[in-house]
Amino acid sequence: MKKLINRPDDVVREELQGIEKAHPDLVKVHYDPHFIVRADAPVQGKVGIVSGGGSGHEPMHGGFVGRGMLDAACPGEVFTSPTPDQMLEATKAVNGGAGVLHIVKNYTGDIMNFEMAAEMAQAEGIEVTSVVINDDVAVQDSLYTAGRRGVGGTVLAEKICGAAAERGYDLQRVTELCERVNANVRSMGMALTSCVVPSAGEPTFDLGENEMEIGIGIHGEPGRQRMEIQPADRITEMLMEPILSDLPFQEGDEVLAFVNSMGGTPLIELYIVYRKVAEMLEERGITIARNLIGPYITSLEMAGVSITLLKLDDEMKELWDDPVVTPGLRWGA
Amino acid sequence: MKKLINRPDDVVREELQGIEKAHPDLVKVHYDPHFIVRADAPVQGKVGIVSGGGSGHEPMHGGFVGRGMLDAACPGEVFTSPTPDQMLEATKAVNGGAGVLHIVKNYTGDIMNFEMAAEMAQAEGIEVTSVVINDDVAVQDSLYTAGRRGVGGTVLAEKICGAAAERGYDLQRVTELCERVNANVRSMGMALTSCVVPSAGEPTFDLGENEMEIGIGIHGEPGRQRMEIQPADRITEMLMEPILSDLPFQEGDEVLAFVNSMGGTPLIELYIVYRKVAEMLEERGITIARNLIGPYITSLEMAGVSITLLKLDDEMKELWDDPVVTPGLRWGA
Repeated sequence: MKKLINRPDDVVREELQGIEKAHPDLVKVHYDPHFIVRADAPVQGKVGIVSGGGSGHEPMHGGFVGRGMLDAACPGEVFTSPTPDQMLEATKAVNGGAGVLHIVKNYTGDIMNFEMAAEMAQAEGIEVTSVVINDDVAVQDSLYTAGRRGVGGTVLAEKICGAAAERGYDLQRVTELCERVNANVRSMGMALTSCVVPSAGEPTFDLGENEMEIGIGIHGEPGRQRMEIQPADRITEMLMEPILSDLPFQEGDEVLAFVNSMGGTPLIELYIVYRKVAEMLEERGITIARNLIGPYITSLEMAGVSITLLKLDDEMKELWDDPVVTPGLRWGA
Repeated sequence: MKKLINRPDDVVREELQGIEKAHPDLVKVHYDPHFIVRADAPVQGKVGIVSGGGSGHEPMHGGFVGRGMLDAACPGEVFTSPTPDQMLEATKAVNGGAGVLHIVKNYTGDIMNFEMAAEMAQAEGIEVTSVVINDDVAVQDSLYTAGRRGVGGTVLAEKICGAAAERGYDLQRVTELCERVNANVRSMGMALTSCVVPSAGEPTFDLGENEMEIGIGIHGEPGRQRMEIQPADRITEMLMEPILSDLPFQEGDEVLAFVNSMGGTPLIELYIVYRKVAEMLEERGITIARNLIGPYITSLEMAGVSITLLKLDDEMKELWDDPVVTPGLRWGA
């Protein structure tokens, strides 16, 4: 296992210590239970937004805590759901009296634990809503999921809803917006290599020297198809076609196109993929009004790419452009 | 070779096409010869800043073209110097009448070609200065270098000098500032894995299953020492100690600490390294006044990390904080 770590058991705690030392102006880190909150939490009168999930997908979610995005994130161990007490403490820490939205990726453990935390928070008098993100068109049901998995759409929902909460939207309006983002976003990913979970010490799955997996999950869960490596343009088509036909995206639509590295794929390759994404959308009369290119929802050092398309409306576009100041995403302020 | 590419010969051109499609608000891409300029170049009365070098280090340099950083970047083929005609055309394209600074990483081919381009531009009446960045403490002379290699310090010099040019510093003042940044910055890197140059199709070097290389160059050039993998804290010490003793950095100094991924190392590991960097500086009474953590000067998909420390003065700090709006680095606007 070739990693820049000390003991596998200390990976998440030491990462949090690094985040704490690096970004004291933006976030505070709490330990036992682990969670990251924005430095000025709770913001009185603002809807709080909490997300979380297994570690290993950085910068998601901890890197998205700050102004204009998440109020708190709960990191589990690598690829392991955080616990209800993490989510409860995070929810309490960000409650400014206007209620708290939980943005939950559709994995069975995350759903169960966030539900439990929501009930406990409600018992303490905090209004909590939840939106489950399930944008991955690759497979119906999966190793850790009933229904579709939540992937890249989560990053976009967190940015857009974070801006809305910052603007003063009330809980119902932020929640409805999050549901609208989820209803209009579709993703699919692929892997060239596996990743190695530190506590396991060996690859999650095996791919042959010339093999790739289309439709991979962000924990290395099986996708649609394992096959010989194809050129980037063909791979892009294999990801884009199921995404486009699913919503479906149509001529005249404006979209946000998000090309994401699974962790080990460098930027030079993401731009080659983006080029083909843009060509395919041009051919179909679909306009890329916004884009995001880089490693934002990763699977440790897995080599591969995912593509996410969000059908935009004017409100989403404006909220996307609003300032965001977090360790992992920053502009406009 | 597991990469998201089409034909190896098309990698750089297709990447540039992707950048062109992704960021028309920020940059324009020219082909034959290849270079990237900010969309509003030339800015009249402003010093132009041009950098460049082999591709494969993205986002450096093309991702740093925009407001508040570079005016143009010249990408060569992967790990291959750009040609003098690229540099000449870029220099002419950004000349707003106040002269042009070339920021050059210390590699023999880059130096030679930038010198030739500077002479040709001067012959056409453009005032050109050059600063060579040579911040890598790992080795004296190397496969492609006489003297020390230019690595992570280049990113910092480009940001700080870009801000100075944006503020209206004249050519002499921007040039002196760039020399001062170079005089106060030190770096060292290491690799856990090699990378694969697309046209070669196989790893640049071989590392055993449990081996790492300390002092690696950004093209996989040999470093100081090949040895068994150590814990992240020990690796961080092996990089930090030669950096700290070289300047030397001293009690009371304020520094910018830059922890950089070589491409294949995920953010979770960078924060583990940053944690140890911060601890070591605290112990020595050195304050981290600014930081940068992420993949900014990469070696394709190489797994590994580099650390760069810059001794800051007040002017550099202010310039660092100035707005920057580029595809690869963005804040404050």
